[in-house]
Amino acid sequence: MTDNKNPDNKNTGNTNPVTVMGLGLMGSTLARAFLDAGHPTTVWNRSAAKAESLVASGATRAESAAGAFAASPLVVICLSVNQNVHDVLEGAGNAVAGRTVVNLTNGTPAQARELATAVTALGGEYVDGGIMAVPPMIAQPGALILYSGRETAFETHQATLEVLAEARYLGTDPGLAPLYDLALLTAMYGMLTGYYQATALIRTEGVKAAEFTPMVHAWVTAMMAGLPRAAEAIDSGEHATEVSSLANNQAAFPNLIEAAREQGVDTSLMEPVRALLDRSVAEGYGDDGLPRLTDLLSARP
Amino acid sequence: MTDNKNPDNKNTGNTNPVTVMGLGLMGSTLARAFLDAGHPTTVWNRSAAKAESLVASGATRAESAAGAFAASPLVVICLSVNQNVHDVLEGAGNAVAGRTVVNLTNGTPAQARELATAVTALGGEYVDGGIMAVPPMIAQPGALILYSGRETAFETHQATLEVLAEARYLGTDPGLAPLYDLALLTAMYGMLTGYYQATALIRTEGVKAAEFTPMVHAWVTAMMAGLPRAAEAIDSGEHATEVSSLANNQAAFPNLIEAAREQGVDTSLMEPVRALLDRSVAEGYGDDGLPRLTDLLSARP
Repeated sequence: MTDNKNPDNKNTGNTNPVTVMGLGLMGSTLARAFLDAGHPTTVWNRSAAKAESLVASGATRAESAAGAFAASPLVVICLSVNQNVHDVLEGAGNAVAGRTVVNLTNGTPAQARELATAVTALGGEYVDGGIMAVPPMIAQPGALILYSGRETAFETHQATLEVLAEARYLGTDPGLAPLYDLALLTAMYGMLTGYYQATALIRTEGVKAAEFTPMVHAWVTAMMAGLPRAAEAIDSGEHATEVSSLANNQAAFPNLIEAAREQGVDTSLMEPVRALLDRSVAEGYGDDGLPRLTDLLSARP
Repeated sequence: MTDNKNPDNKNTGNTNPVTVMGLGLMGSTLARAFLDAGHPTTVWNRSAAKAESLVASGATRAESAAGAFAASPLVVICLSVNQNVHDVLEGAGNAVAGRTVVNLTNGTPAQARELATAVTALGGEYVDGGIMAVPPMIAQPGALILYSGRETAFETHQATLEVLAEARYLGTDPGLAPLYDLALLTAMYGMLTGYYQATALIRTEGVKAAEFTPMVHAWVTAMMAGLPRAAEAIDSGEHATEVSSLANNQAAFPNLIEAAREQGVDTSLMEPVRALLDRSVAEGYGDDGLPRLTDLLSARP
């Protein structure tokens, strides 16, 4: 291979073939990352038109789901919902045998376990993954994909998967990757909706978001420094506190809601927090610290 | 003053007298910080017994609200609710004249403005404050108190107030300090409740909070790096995105709720987020990014 065949100075040292099924925004981005890294890449999408620009860049289009599985020992699937993954497996049938299926479709832990059973029944090996990145982050520093399921299959293909993002293996239960994914997204929505509410409040008095944001960033970062201690309380069940009890928080919270109402800000995201604080005190946890709320949100035994 | 009169090596160079009214957990901590810094400190509480240990440490107990105001040009008030501050002002009457009243009681912007009017009518100067700290943080590095109201009064007493915490002045509107305080608390509750929900999810599969917390900390920190860009969108009203539209988030969110239900985790804090995402798409903002939610939470014009 001469330099002028690789004008973009891309890495062409990767010769392991890979198939990507599902060419939505994320799937296309994954396929392009494999292509850019030099992997012989087969692509498949239910509506074939989405494959065109990838084929123009050197990908091979599979004519069928069975063909997509036949093309590569590693098949990365990124569809809109897991029911579509079941459909694809059914369409591929025996072609799944001997393949490693890495399913990056968003879903629940229970769905991942069902798919693992289905793939195993077809003679394949199943790895589930949760992508902790938006498409522009793929193949860039900072992108992370969480994996769980068949450990040997993950290890065999880890180097190829690292093309997409840092690949972190969580354990053999295929439900772990979606569980962590969903938990991290839940934490993200909490932080973001807290920020949007805070910014909605502050700009009722004409304060710019850009002016307020460094302060809220510093404050939330400082509060996050307390999370390891919260984790200790959650794991040990020792929730006694001298600092900021659930009763204190319950007493102060109505002030937050009243102020938001006075400022004309929507309180619908705050109301269930108040209800949870009320419940914590009603159930006798008033002297405990806030991390006790994890118990109240958890499954009852 | 000789060394043996200052065995704890405390700062005794501060001679400006200060009064602290309200000796709950926070008020007592504030009074002790002034005492430790060498300020002649007068204390007052509705039930006098709470003053005893401070008096034993050198504080002077005021016999009445009027006496508390008479004792010091700077009167720091920290009561449970702002109605009690009105009562104290009424009790003190003319003794308020010429005093700077720094009110650190939790309340709303509207309450702060009413109190500013009341103090001004009595011939005093009003500064409102929001304490961004729990009591053990007072007089320690990292503690912050936000102030707003009469600027000259703040400047006159800033050095004394710095004994308690970093003193940051926000502007002449007395409502600003409680507004920022409430907004920062709202952001904190968002982050914390997101973390508690995430931890409740993760431990349904036996994962320890201590194991999960470093990952959630890193992830939320990474997501917070996007807040300055969110602030730009909020301030400019330019919400178009190619990355993570409200429609994408609306489509993915039910998966989060379904997974939480499958795991037996309470979804009451997630439901209003789903409703807000649904509303955003129904109102025609599906192509916009998440920071558009600030508009949906804000006062309608």
